[in-house]
Amino acid sequence: MDLLLIGIGTGNPDHLTLEAVKALNSVDLVLIPEKGEDKADLAELRRRICADVLTDPAVRIRGFAMPVRDPANPSYLARVNDWHDAIAGAWTAAISDAGGAERVALLVWGDPALYDSTLRIAERLARRMELRVRVIPGIMSPQVLAAAHGIPLNDLGAPFLVTTGRRLREDGWPLGVDTLVVMLDGGCAFQTVPPEGVEIWWGAYVGMSGQITDRGPLSEAGPRILAAREAARAEHGWIMDIYILRRTPAG
Amino acid sequence: MDLLLIGIGTGNPDHLTLEAVKALNSVDLVLIPEKGEDKADLAELRRRICADVLTDPAVRIRGFAMPVRDPANPSYLARVNDWHDAIAGAWTAAISDAGGAERVALLVWGDPALYDSTLRIAERLARRMELRVRVIPGIMSPQVLAAAHGIPLNDLGAPFLVTTGRRLREDGWPLGVDTLVVMLDGGCAFQTVPPEGVEIWWGAYVGMSGQITDRGPLSEAGPRILAAREAARAEHGWIMDIYILRRTPAG
Ligand SMILES: C[S@@+](CC[C@H](N)C(=O)[O-])C[C@H]1O[C@@H](n2cnc3c(N)ncnc32)[C@H](O)[C@@H]1O
Ligand SMILES: C[S@@+](CC[C@H](N)C(=O)[O-])C[C@H]1O[C@@H](n2cnc3c(N)ncnc32)[C@H](O)[C@@H]1O
Repeated sequence: MDLLLIGIGTGNPDHLTLEAVKALNSVDLVLIPEKGEDKADLAELRRRICADVLTDPAVRIRGFAMPVRDPANPSYLARVNDWHDAIAGAWTAAISDAGGAERVALLVWGDPALYDSTLRIAERLARRMELRVRVIPGIMSPQVLAAAHGIPLNDLGAPFLVTTGRRLREDGWPLGVDTLVVMLDGGCAFQTVPPEGVEIWWGAYVGMSGQITDRGPLSEAGPRILAAREAARAEHGWIMDIYILRRTPAG
Repeated sequence: MDLLLIGIGTGNPDHLTLEAVKALNSVDLVLIPEKGEDKADLAELRRRICADVLTDPAVRIRGFAMPVRDPANPSYLARVNDWHDAIAGAWTAAISDAGGAERVALLVWGDPALYDSTLRIAERLARRMELRVRVIPGIMSPQVLAAAHGIPLNDLGAPFLVTTGRRLREDGWPLGVDTLVVMLDGGCAFQTVPPEGVEIWWGAYVGMSGQITDRGPLSEAGPRILAAREAARAEHGWIMDIYILRRTPAG
């Protein structure tokens, strides 16, 4: 079986590349995860993308219920492993429910290479069956954030670190790098950073119709962002946000 | 004037997003840099992209000669600043040669946010005239490399650093991060890394028809890559390559 992991960008259907459109039209079956609950609009978005760009009527579309993590499992790693196994199982069940398929597509949020488990789940599936995995890159949230602010990710010739809220909170600002792109931060870890000399460029729902952004010195923008984030989460029921922190390089 | 900086991906015309296609069709004028010399095929690619996706015949396309850096200028920073000024001047001249324009597009390799000077040059232009700059993100080389190898950029929940060959050579492997994405490396800086426990995923011309990749333990793949790189550069007359280094995390 061929499994195509297609990056779809961060919520704007126009983020799709021409390569993604062609890839989608080349498969027999598209699997759409249904998370139920509050994030249901994301399944909606995937269906809308299919409706917009599929020109081949032979392509079937099937939803499947996303397994949930078992909170009773005390080990984090075992919990994730079991969960990934369950998802691989859900894919297999959905494919056989659909009467089988030779080429299957999964629509992956942003880019499959960035903080996403689909590639790891596909690896598990590849242990159980013959599988050729192909990845089609998609626009990812750091790029959409940078574009929204009209700024480069890197200073001239300088490096930048892509990291998570948890790592920033637990490890502090890493040595030797002045630009951080922080993702997966439910807890506003920027609050743990000494704000002197630090600028923040923040965005929520970037690329989507509800996009909101803010920027400024961390000392001033930080409190504004906390408030905007709370209000937006209350309104939408969920939030996805990302930010860039940049400090004046030492000496 | 509106200036649209449109990311075009890394050489595969299908990397274009639907947003980029719409943006291109929304302008009066597309400016194409002609570097002359060996990299002329990149101007060719930009022209081909325009031919492929432009459906509005009113959009004009104009080449302009890219200024070159003045090697006689002893200060690096002054050299770059003068060069950026010269490029801003070349844009302005090309626009007025074309009889003026209200909406102008520049096609930027990969994503305008990643190791690219177009945004900085646009800032300079904005000091001389009223300019609204809009960035349209494009698929960038780290994503295409990861997709070609079917690997994620990050280890589970772990950070990664995007950096240059020069920084890797001069500063060594940075503390606290086990994955590096190395760009702009004409000198194969991976040779300066102690290879024990390090894997490399390398690619040249990623996304293009001449794409070549290699991967493996740095000790074994490193010498193969040096040889492949030399051969490819001799054949094409130029090379663009990028790689990921990952070391086994310290327990
Ligand atoms: C599980 S990761 C997936 C990232 C995705 N693969 C990508 O390429 O962007 C989810 C995180 O990505 C970021 N993110 C994804 N989409 C976003 C959006 N539209 N607006 C803001 N942040 C977003 C947030 O930091 C969120 O916590
Ligand atoms: C001036 S930077 C521009 C990067 C570009 N803006 C991007 O988003 O990928 C040029 C560097 O990008 C990398 N690069 C760009 N296109 C590439 C390709 N098709 N294959 C391999 N590396 C590429 C190389 O490391 C090269 O030295």
